[in-house]
Amino acid sequence: MTRHPFDPLTPEEIKLSAHILRQHVSSSDIVFRVVTLWEPPKAEMIAFLDRENALRGALHKDNPSHPSRCARIQAYINKKFCEFKVNLDICNVISEEILHGRQSHIDSDLMRKVELACLADPRVQDKISQLKLPQNSTVVVEPWTYGPDGMNDMSKLLTMCWFYMRISSDPDANYYAYPLPLSVEMATETMDVMRIIHLPLSDDEHDEGDKPLQPFDQQNLHASGEYHPNLSTAGRRTTTKPYHVNQPQGPSFTIDGQKVSWEKWTFRVGFNYREGMTLHDIRYDDRSLFYRLSLSEMFVPYGDPRMPYPRKAAFDLGNDGAGICANNLKLGCDCLGHIRYFDGYLNTNSGLPIKLPNVICCHEIDDGIIWKHTNFRTGNAVVTRSRQLVLQTIITASNYEYIFAFYFGQDASLTYEVRATGILSTAPISSAPTTTSRYGTVVGPGILAPNHQHLFCLRIDPAIDGHRNSLLVEESHPLPVDAEANPFGMGYTTQSRIITNETGLDLDHNTNRTFKIVNESITNRIASTPVGYKLVPFYSQPILAHPSSFHARRSEFAKHAVWVTRYHDDEMFPAGRFTMQSIGGEGIASWIEGRGTGQSDTRAESDEFNGPENAERVLGDPSSVQNKDIVIWHTFGSTHNPRVEDWPVMPCEKMSVSLKPVNFFESNPAMDVPISTQERNCSVLVEG
Amino acid sequence: MTRHPFDPLTPEEIKLSAHILRQHVSSSDIVFRVVTLWEPPKAEMIAFLDRENALRGALHKDNPSHPSRCARIQAYINKKFCEFKVNLDICNVISEEILHGRQSHIDSDLMRKVELACLADPRVQDKISQLKLPQNSTVVVEPWTYGPDGMNDMSKLLTMCWFYMRISSDPDANYYAYPLPLSVEMATETMDVMRIIHLPLSDDEHDEGDKPLQPFDQQNLHASGEYHPNLSTAGRRTTTKPYHVNQPQGPSFTIDGQKVSWEKWTFRVGFNYREGMTLHDIRYDDRSLFYRLSLSEMFVPYGDPRMPYPRKAAFDLGNDGAGICANNLKLGCDCLGHIRYFDGYLNTNSGLPIKLPNVICCHEIDDGIIWKHTNFRTGNAVVTRSRQLVLQTIITASNYEYIFAFYFGQDASLTYEVRATGILSTAPISSAPTTTSRYGTVVGPGILAPNHQHLFCLRIDPAIDGHRNSLLVEESHPLPVDAEANPFGMGYTTQSRIITNETGLDLDHNTNRTFKIVNESITNRIASTPVGYKLVPFYSQPILAHPSSFHARRSEFAKHAVWVTRYHDDEMFPAGRFTMQSIGGEGIASWIEGRGTGQSDTRAESDEFNGPENAERVLGDPSSVQNKDIVIWHTFGSTHNPRVEDWPVMPCEKMSVSLKPVNFFESNPAMDVPISTQERNCSVLVEG
Repeated sequence: MTRHPFDPLTPEEIKLSAHILRQHVSSSDIVFRVVTLWEPPKAEMIAFLDRENALRGALHKDNPSHPSRCARIQAYINKKFCEFKVNLDICNVISEEILHGRQSHIDSDLMRKVELACLADPRVQDKISQLKLPQNSTVVVEPWTYGPDGMNDMSKLLTMCWFYMRISSDPDANYYAYPLPLSVEMATETMDVMRIIHLPLSDDEHDEGDKPLQPFDQQNLHASGEYHPNLSTAGRRTTTKPYHVNQPQGPSFTIDGQKVSWEKWTFRVGFNYREGMTLHDIRYDDRSLFYRLSLSEMFVPYGDPRMPYPRKAAFDLGNDGAGICANNLKLGCDCLGHIRYFDGYLNTNSGLPIKLPNVICCHEIDDGIIWKHTNFRTGNAVVTRSRQLVLQTIITASNYEYIFAFYFGQDASLTYEVRATGILSTAPISSAPTTTSRYGTVVGPGILAPNHQHLFCLRIDPAIDGHRNSLLVEESHPLPVDAEANPFGMGYTTQSRIITNETGLDLDHNTNRTFKIVNESITNRIASTPVGYKLVPFYSQPILAHPSSFHARRSEFAKHAVWVTRYHDDEMFPAGRFTMQSIGGEGIASWIEGRGTGQSDTRAESDEFNGPENAERVLGDPSSVQNKDIVIWHTFGSTHNPRVEDWPVMPCEKMSVSLKPVNFFESNPAMDVPISTQERNCSVLVEG
Repeated sequence: MTRHPFDPLTPEEIKLSAHILRQHVSSSDIVFRVVTLWEPPKAEMIAFLDRENALRGALHKDNPSHPSRCARIQAYINKKFCEFKVNLDICNVISEEILHGRQSHIDSDLMRKVELACLADPRVQDKISQLKLPQNSTVVVEPWTYGPDGMNDMSKLLTMCWFYMRISSDPDANYYAYPLPLSVEMATETMDVMRIIHLPLSDDEHDEGDKPLQPFDQQNLHASGEYHPNLSTAGRRTTTKPYHVNQPQGPSFTIDGQKVSWEKWTFRVGFNYREGMTLHDIRYDDRSLFYRLSLSEMFVPYGDPRMPYPRKAAFDLGNDGAGICANNLKLGCDCLGHIRYFDGYLNTNSGLPIKLPNVICCHEIDDGIIWKHTNFRTGNAVVTRSRQLVLQTIITASNYEYIFAFYFGQDASLTYEVRATGILSTAPISSAPTTTSRYGTVVGPGILAPNHQHLFCLRIDPAIDGHRNSLLVEESHPLPVDAEANPFGMGYTTQSRIITNETGLDLDHNTNRTFKIVNESITNRIASTPVGYKLVPFYSQPILAHPSSFHARRSEFAKHAVWVTRYHDDEMFPAGRFTMQSIGGEGIASWIEGRGTGQSDTRAESDEFNGPENAERVLGDPSSVQNKDIVIWHTFGSTHNPRVEDWPVMPCEKMSVSLKPVNFFESNPAMDVPISTQERNCSVLVEG
């Protein structure tokens, strides 16, 4: 069977890739960290897709533009971190790179060893014994990547170990409910304890080095942190009656391999260790909309300035891998109705494929009304219901869960939703009554939930009726009061500009700033404007960390809400290809700066927004983004200053971003959706 | 049967009220415009609710605090517009007011007469004949209230008549697809044609008075504007398979009269001619949250400065009445699952009750996951699904539809959602190819959809654990880089202030500005902060019209996103009690100014946000809002610069606002929601 070029590697291809690499390198000391699809160069893919589309979607083996099938391997060869491009068609390594000074993403096997080594250290054991923990409790060590704070040499891997306690023998007991006032800095490779740190129990406390730790206060024992039904002592409500979704004719989607077809939409589902779910070649009614959509990075910097908390700064994609952390979704638990699942395949350290079952689910939901009108003169109503297709994946990043979902609409709109749930990362605090902290919220006895931010970056690789697109920024401004042109003072118009050079931009609801991805060479026949899709952003606070801080330097995407860059095959990750102990200077702002616009840092403040355009740049300017193959990046998230209600498991915090046609079609594309009737929908009247 | 004081008037009570008024006034020239519940003074209601709550919700006839049952009647008595308070317990008029210079809301019977009078006028007929309209077409006159533009004396009612054409004999044909270049200013009471205005067909055209109108271009005939299934010639998609909601044990709600109980929530549903759906005495787990929630006003100013378009400015509540415009919801059309409907009762001009069936529907939806956590050490997941209760009402305001819904969550959050749908208000434009306009979007041949704003004001009357509440505004700010306190430059903290005096405030996502309604006298036992609920606002542009314009002066609420005022029984409508041809100076900013803070106009810019607090005011300051009975008003909406995709019926544009507990409870109130299992949810696996 011919695989589509966007299809993830099959288990056989993973095996083959590893085999080819083993043949290629002389050493047998190989630790495979990544064996994944090396997506074909876009130039080749465009030719392929154009031809595939001309063939009406048929996969022809003899499609002459079929790109080579390649794998990306990242591996430690004799402890040296390297990347290889392996051509699976010709069974050869075609390029290799030694990744000097780089670290691979988290190795969970290694982390488990670090935990054990940390716990086994007699100095750590001594500290634990000072705590005089309750009998039958179990100490749990949670290893975190080290967020650089300038206090250590970053050329060596370090791990921060945070200490918690389970008070039940049940391994599902919530140990985050008992943060212990201890942390340990470990040398990851040698597994040596580098430093033992006492965690502060009040805002102004500092690490007091060698003093003995205060014993655990037995009065703080409580079950309020338990969420598992086997352990939670709280009653469970019995008032919620069952609710079933019945689809007597089955779902409206069809799935062929990785290709999904639903209500005029077609797209391909991808999956990799880092981004998790990806979508490719997204079309509506055979018209091209997006080449690729994915969450490209996320960053969770904590805001507590007390040592060692500045080291808490999680890149959940770059360090942990959204694919690696993907949940095995369960029928009837994670979604409702008729569900189709996709499996994912990753690799072990020895290069063997491992199956991650059910990492993505696909199902339909009813979303209320999509359009309605009642003619008030006749009283006749016409109403249609909105069906949506949901592609969902859920990841567990230690304590937190993120639910990522694309919602496809019958009106050709597309929404990306993030739900943050799971358990807050906790820190110890004095359990004296009325204790509070400037740096977070006390959510239980002795439990501080520190303030932090969640910063997501959605990568939008548009193909609006083709691959040469522009970003048009439109604002609505009052007209000046004028006896001729605006005598009543209520007139307003829009002001638009095409962004000519790569840059970062900010949101401004006060001017209704709107970001439209347009194809300037195709004009809407009705509206006489370029066809386009607009980004409906999620309003949130940019990164709070000071620009000079490691947090800010490492997460360049986090300082602006919208970025536009020229497309490059190797620019997928806006905080850089490698985020483990990264120290900055290699993300999206650096790319832009490297191409010499010098504008990466320019905030588009409203007063300068309408100022003179940048001088036209010479042809071939690498930073030009007008009528070019461009990428739009949207940074959004939340400043999460916890609530008590977020404990012990947080109710979903929803964030959503939409892409909507703007003068792309010639009328509402949902006009032909079936009219809503009782015969069709079979609702039940509840009598008064 | 004893009615609850919040229950709307029954048909019998409407009849009785009218009867009492007829007895009271000597004249028989009475035109009843409003006969509705006069909600009891809050002071009396608090006493009643406290006692009712102490009696565990039982309705006791002998509840000594039972307030009098009163009706509010607005009527023209001998053509004079008056308001009466009628006590139904003692069958007496207890107060009356002559509403000098005021106009009642739109009288649809009168509007129909105006339409006919306008059409019958020979000068108008002459104009129509100049248009040489297609045979068999029908001219439709759409009367609008006159938005003051300073060109006429506002003491007399005027109506703007806009002209459209139906090209089919079917009365459901979409006449908005054929806007004609003609409008007429009518004296509403005398039904005289005051002025005939030619509408401009290009941006720079002005009314050319007596010139003959250009004939209609027959080439513009098209069916693309038809949405009714009987008329639309476009095919209808057949791919959407049926989707049913099955609730084998029935819904989880119980309804007793107007009282709804669902998943620890209790509240009462009200309904009146102006606000439509209202909610009262909203509690969760017996704790008081909100005294009253309602949409209090909405304003739709158009942005086209060309005469006569500045007169297009719709107060859909104050002028049209959300209750009057409420749709008769149909089973299986407007919602899915097990549906309970509420009827509404209004009155005729002769004081008789009229029933509006099914104006509000109540049903449950599944909202995906409410919380989930997987212990990555055991692989055990615990997941719970989110059930929501929806209270929905839909209004038709001529061309537009608005779907208003409250969503109650099991996590004690409450979301108010507006969906805008229906048909754009259209204006004529030259049908020459490539014609565009600065003032809107061409959505079809000869059809301009002008730019406009939708500005909603949600009135939130809080009762967070009692009636003395405060508004706390919190922002997140970076700590200064400091060798001691913030050596790594990543620290941030929140800065809070209690708003001491009535004012309007703006949104600022850049500082994560958060609006918390708190009860300062009740401290959360866990977090040691005041208990509260936060407003999660909808980010949108404030009103664009210049402050000196009638649009801005008439809709005072529209210039700030969040307002806090002291509670007053008679301050329900933030653009003023009467909006028909209002000229401003009587909305929320005027109330505040009238109480002498002089701050109603102060924009809380971020630089002054953290400046010195207002000097403490003397006790008894009427503008003080700290630890007082306060009201929070949230203005939100959209700047709607139409898309072609909004035509002919617009896919829903969603806007939503939430109220969420912040340190109100002692943990996540949804922890006890049933665990999600396949046994319970009965999903269906779609095989690969």
